[in-house]
Amino acid sequence: MPGSSSPHAIIAQSGGPTAVINQSLIGCVQRWLATSGSGRLLGARHAVRGIVNEDFIDFLTVDPALLTAVAASPSAALGSSRDKPDEEYCRRIAAVLAKHDISVFFYIGGNDSADTCRIVAEFAHANGQALRAFHIPKTIDNDLVENDHCPGYASAARYVAKLFVGDDLDNRALPGVKINVVMGRHAGFLTAAAAMARSCNSSSISEPGPHLLYLPERPTTLRDMCVEIAAVYTRIGRCQVAVSEGIRDAESGKLLTEVFESHAERDAHGNVQLSGSGTLGDQLADAVRVFLKGEAGVANPRVRADTLGYAQRSFPDPSPVDQTEAEAVGSLAAEMALADHPGGSITIKRTSNDPYEVAYEFRNLAAIAQKTRHMPDEFIAASNHDVTDGFLQYLQPLVGALPAVQGFI
Amino acid sequence: MPGSSSPHAIIAQSGGPTAVINQSLIGCVQRWLATSGSGRLLGARHAVRGIVNEDFIDFLTVDPALLTAVAASPSAALGSSRDKPDEEYCRRIAAVLAKHDISVFFYIGGNDSADTCRIVAEFAHANGQALRAFHIPKTIDNDLVENDHCPGYASAARYVAKLFVGDDLDNRALPGVKINVVMGRHAGFLTAAAAMARSCNSSSISEPGPHLLYLPERPTTLRDMCVEIAAVYTRIGRCQVAVSEGIRDAESGKLLTEVFESHAERDAHGNVQLSGSGTLGDQLADAVRVFLKGEAGVANPRVRADTLGYAQRSFPDPSPVDQTEAEAVGSLAAEMALADHPGGSITIKRTSNDPYEVAYEFRNLAAIAQKTRHMPDEFIAASNHDVTDGFLQYLQPLVGALPAVQGFI
Repeated sequence: MPGSSSPHAIIAQSGGPTAVINQSLIGCVQRWLATSGSGRLLGARHAVRGIVNEDFIDFLTVDPALLTAVAASPSAALGSSRDKPDEEYCRRIAAVLAKHDISVFFYIGGNDSADTCRIVAEFAHANGQALRAFHIPKTIDNDLVENDHCPGYASAARYVAKLFVGDDLDNRALPGVKINVVMGRHAGFLTAAAAMARSCNSSSISEPGPHLLYLPERPTTLRDMCVEIAAVYTRIGRCQVAVSEGIRDAESGKLLTEVFESHAERDAHGNVQLSGSGTLGDQLADAVRVFLKGEAGVANPRVRADTLGYAQRSFPDPSPVDQTEAEAVGSLAAEMALADHPGGSITIKRTSNDPYEVAYEFRNLAAIAQKTRHMPDEFIAASNHDVTDGFLQYLQPLVGALPAVQGFI
Repeated sequence: MPGSSSPHAIIAQSGGPTAVINQSLIGCVQRWLATSGSGRLLGARHAVRGIVNEDFIDFLTVDPALLTAVAASPSAALGSSRDKPDEEYCRRIAAVLAKHDISVFFYIGGNDSADTCRIVAEFAHANGQALRAFHIPKTIDNDLVENDHCPGYASAARYVAKLFVGDDLDNRALPGVKINVVMGRHAGFLTAAAAMARSCNSSSISEPGPHLLYLPERPTTLRDMCVEIAAVYTRIGRCQVAVSEGIRDAESGKLLTEVFESHAERDAHGNVQLSGSGTLGDQLADAVRVFLKGEAGVANPRVRADTLGYAQRSFPDPSPVDQTEAEAVGSLAAEMALADHPGGSITIKRTSNDPYEVAYEFRNLAAIAQKTRHMPDEFIAASNHDVTDGFLQYLQPLVGALPAVQGFI
């Protein structure tokens, strides 16, 4: 019922959780409760699945202190889902929304979630239902178009940068090749964040890592990677490498993971499972070890690989800027929904880098849905295996304070 | 020259780095510089290898501000080594120490390092050299005998507990079986620290993970693990599992990693490489997936594994208690060396749990060297796959403040 003073609304969280997706949830809930008067706000558990199953909580009944505690908790407090609704699924969603007299749909997620938002809204409109859908952005991959950056990315980047700082010092103490596989299916933003670790290393530390970064935007070959890693190792006796899980083979165009594995699992969206397995890192380490012992003539090289895993999106050490912005996009969605805004996707635009300032703008769902933003060329160094200073200036205000480290080697 | 008012000394760091091993280094250095008068203190780069190669820094020449910054940095600022000296190696070490008129040897490390300390001292004595060796304890494995706990453990335990908190919420949002492989070759203390995550979960969260812990102290079989994991999964729809990399097969007595892998790498100490590979986690995940789909009849189970990797020992977020104690054992070593103490290993004894208080005591090197402390029976639950409240009370004062989390599912 757009135009009504008290519409009823539903909110859900979708896709991979982040360290701050609950800030967006609670930002929306608190603003709604403070502003809407008699309008109900339901939370659906496990995303669209919770809508069709009518598995709701009514936020009017939740203790305000619990809301505050949830906001500071990582992961998705309502639960999530990887379900991608087809037409029948959308029909069921629309039917449930109509049954509960709901005319506002808040959905927090990435580009798949924006698409779900769009499909549900279009289906409802085609059936004569009044429904305004608000997509609240979230993704550690930082790959939503029309956004300077996405809530969730800064906290994941913070974790990656901190991990690489300590890991580089570890690999300096016991020198070798250290490969770290970082999340990011299509976009290299999170892998690129590893480069921020270098800024933590002070003057006493020469040649801080990471020394090579492999991004999905720059396909390569296993052989080229081995040659490049061996060159760094031969020159300085160690090499810390950041590899995106989405790195592609330049010859076949396939994911390197697919080249290594014949039996890759796929999810409901048809995507190959990349996370939750150490295979890519292990296979890369094996290949580098063979190359170093063989062509590079290194007697007993120490080669190790770590796959950073789900802690990238759920480690409880969020970036303060990320918390603030995630809360803001949720709050703005509620505010605009209650001001009869027709709906869309909220985006973040950077209006100033020094001092750091952002503005929030609406875009049509179709402008965001299913589109993927990649690392722009100006963020990738000419070598293809590093970032530019421009990228570091872009990232620096987002990640919060990082440790400053020193050493004697 | 014991008895001299100004002996000369050398210090080095050995074995796997930790988040606080530099606190011990700088604690010793600062106390030495403040107390010794004209006695030199050399730092050997990369442990015993730096001694035989005479690769030293002279701490009298180091900017005091750099010392303070190094203390707060993770990993081993002097570098480390896995070399285990044989008799010829010890002869060369003793010759270098004699050449530089060094009569005090500080060595920061675990039980292998205590043994190196012992061998070098015995060799020097047999050759008529005056040498007092001080072993300064360090190990994330927490496996030194005669110690309540070891510097380095609390920070690693803090990282593991924080990671499990976020990871359990992540596995609650997208439910499935989540296996996390934790460091610890012989002792389960670090894997057991995952259980601390449950204390972070407040009343709104039921059945917080981890739900099963597999410790080296309790060998099991792959089949039993699958049955136990399936039972939790069938009951609550998810299961977070902490598995020690050192878990052993009860039937063969072998490491489970060895059962899975025919070609395991070994280091200079004859130890199989456990870290820096995702193999154990991946193989366990595959086995659990097959079991759930087969015998347990689950249609499409979500099973993921992460291997926590080197961040456990180098993530720059140390426990405050760990920092304080690591500094204290280093400082005490310098103090006692300058007070003509004959040498030995410094140990930590807990004198009170509430309020938390510790005392530092010396033990003979032979009492510590090459011995491994395991989790005592009173810390392991009767189920064999969990810890007792006694363990959580033991761990709680060590890890520092942990996040408090809430949710709606």
